Amino acid sequence: MRYLDAEAIENIAVGAAFLGTGGGGDPYIGKMMALSAIENNGPVQLLSPEEVEDDDFFIPAAMMGAPSVMIEKFPNGNEFVRVFEKLGRYLGKETIRGTFPMEAGGVNSMIPIVVAAQMGIPLIDCDSMGRAFPELQMATFNLHGMSATPMAITDEKGNIGIMETIDNKWTERLARVQTVEMGASAMVSIYPATGRQLKDYGIHNIITLSEEIGKVIRGTYENEQEKMTALLEVTNGFQLFQGKIIDVKREIKGGFNFGRVKISGLNDNLGDEAVIHFQNENLVAEKNGVPIAMTPDLICMVDLETLAPVTTEALKYGKRVQVMGLIADSDWRTEIGIETVGPKYFGYDLEYVPIETLVAKEDK
Amino acid sequence: MRYLDAEAIENIAVGAAFLGTGGGGDPYIGKMMALSAIENNGPVQLLSPEEVEDDDFFIPAAMMGAPSVMIEKFPNGNEFVRVFEKLGRYLGKETIRGTFPMEAGGVNSMIPIVVAAQMGIPLIDCDSMGRAFPELQMATFNLHGMSATPMAITDEKGNIGIMETIDNKWTERLARVQTVEMGASAMVSIYPATGRQLKDYGIHNIITLSEEIGKVIRGTYENEQEKMTALLEVTNGFQLFQGKIIDVKREIKGGFNFGRVKISGLNDNLGDEAVIHFQNENLVAEKNGVPIAMTPDLICMVDLETLAPVTTEALKYGKRVQVMGLIADSDWRTEIGIETVGPKYFGYDLEYVPIETLVAKEDK
Repeated sequence: MRYLDAEAIENIAVGAAFLGTGGGGDPYIGKMMALSAIENNGPVQLLSPEEVEDDDFFIPAAMMGAPSVMIEKFPNGNEFVRVFEKLGRYLGKETIRGTFPMEAGGVNSMIPIVVAAQMGIPLIDCDSMGRAFPELQMATFNLHGMSATPMAITDEKGNIGIMETIDNKWTERLARVQTVEMGASAMVSIYPATGRQLKDYGIHNIITLSEEIGKVIRGTYENEQEKMTALLEVTNGFQLFQGKIIDVKREIKGGFNFGRVKISGLNDNLGDEAVIHFQNENLVAEKNGVPIAMTPDLICMVDLETLAPVTTEALKYGKRVQVMGLIADSDWRTEIGIETVGPKYFGYDLEYVPIETLVAKEDK
Repeated sequence: MRYLDAEAIENIAVGAAFLGTGGGGDPYIGKMMALSAIENNGPVQLLSPEEVEDDDFFIPAAMMGAPSVMIEKFPNGNEFVRVFEKLGRYLGKETIRGTFPMEAGGVNSMIPIVVAAQMGIPLIDCDSMGRAFPELQMATFNLHGMSATPMAITDEKGNIGIMETIDNKWTERLARVQTVEMGASAMVSIYPATGRQLKDYGIHNIITLSEEIGKVIRGTYENEQEKMTALLEVTNGFQLFQGKIIDVKREIKGGFNFGRVKISGLNDNLGDEAVIHFQNENLVAEKNGVPIAMTPDLICMVDLETLAPVTTEALKYGKRVQVMGLIADSDWRTEIGIETVGPKYFGYDLEYVPIETLVAKEDK
């Protein structure tokens, strides 16, 4: 158990945006909201999943929809107080012991901090993705047979819905059409979980990992190379490509940000071209037409000089970036994991190949 | 208080399809379900709104969506047992004293009978439209400031949602996108009401009126003219146009049946042409390009010989029809009524003119 102060929040916001693999929203507004929430309500208690009671009951707080819209409709936390109360009553659970993030991301790592501060409940150090993914069934909870419902959905206007669906794909379908109707972004509380379920099926330590990554990115080092070395060490990651953005295609469709970015190589990659395809999150990275990383492994873009994470909505012509790759949580690399979030699910005609295999092939 | 037997159901099905003004679905399947429900559970008790306690609590049962799809997904009643239980619990009302139809129509007048039979609760003799309308906010309850929510929505697969919205237009928007996603048709329980609200804001006697209309249409008369005279008398209606259908345009869009039908005149209307525009329900009738009836007044089509109601999904080339007009309930003719369901709301560039004025002009 420890408390998150302003410095911790600054680090988490940046590190979570890195793990958000382009999605999960810009960290700036979320961070400001979280800082203001702890200024008003005091620091937030962070518990590891091991520290909670098995029978206690937890509800996550997240936004779904297009990140580019999300950041314009950031919740002030009150919305979730109402949602938690309604959902808790519907579930017959009077006491909600804490909240947690559904995914790592600039917005979705900050919202649970705001809610925890406002409600005076602890934040649990786990999520259900270990990164960010665009759809609700893309959760380790789902892989382990947990139901996403009863869930609650609400908007900034005050509309609220509670749903029970026959499976988690239907949760996604029905929540998605409401999200689009609500203006391409909505607040959701899905996969209400017991302490036991957080222990068994959550991805532990995600907030602490985000914080460590943020510390490196915000830290001062002798030179860029040293900083990159520290970042590779803390993330166990790979450097995939360096270059300058020469083209961005983007559209909001069905409550998602779809698009792809073209990067012209610099330094070691001079003469090469990379293309990264995204649906909210970066999903497939190609170099000269050949895949070099693919979902569920993490494709993270950072500023070439500062290593600050670059989200998909911040992509623009001329920006110099470093593409990095991280190994996905082992849950995502199982057969059902690949079926749920592998390249084929997203419509790419690719067999999943682990990033370490692709990198080893590159190096030959 | 009285009981509805098989004969009553046969009559109600036909009369309600007449009052459904082309929408509300085909009466045949609904009737079969209602007959089977009372065969299995005994006759259904019909109470007038005057006979219920002010503080008692009632939930309606209805389908929303495209009538052409609705009739393929007719509920067996069990869906509503589950919905009533969930919605009742959400509302904190343990006892649901009865059910009632939201509108008159071939499907939506029968569903509450099925539910009442299955649950062993009374049916209340009122609705909230006095006809059928395509959208959820088109209810006299809405005109009187009642909230459509908390409402429940469910599908034949077992997905269920409960919603609370900031106004009744948002109920319609969010229920509509879910209806479309559920396959263009869904079951809803909206405007949960007290006995007092049924008394004050419901349109009384709608089931009895449907039954009387059905009796005439199913009855035996000396000749067609006598039957028509009886129908005009019981409905207080007008004969607007006689002819043969020469063209039907129809599409399912956004969970509605949209279209228009062209009718070439017969008998007194020889040489004339009528066009009727519909969105689930018939909304505007024109004769030789001039409006002869418009929403909220009722535009009912019947078979020229048998006077059997013709729903919009049963329109077909060559069918000989009689177009009739009925005066809408006075609630619909208020300023807010016209704003809610007048021709302008549906996108027609027409000032509302009462049907009796239009008919008087015609007769000059």
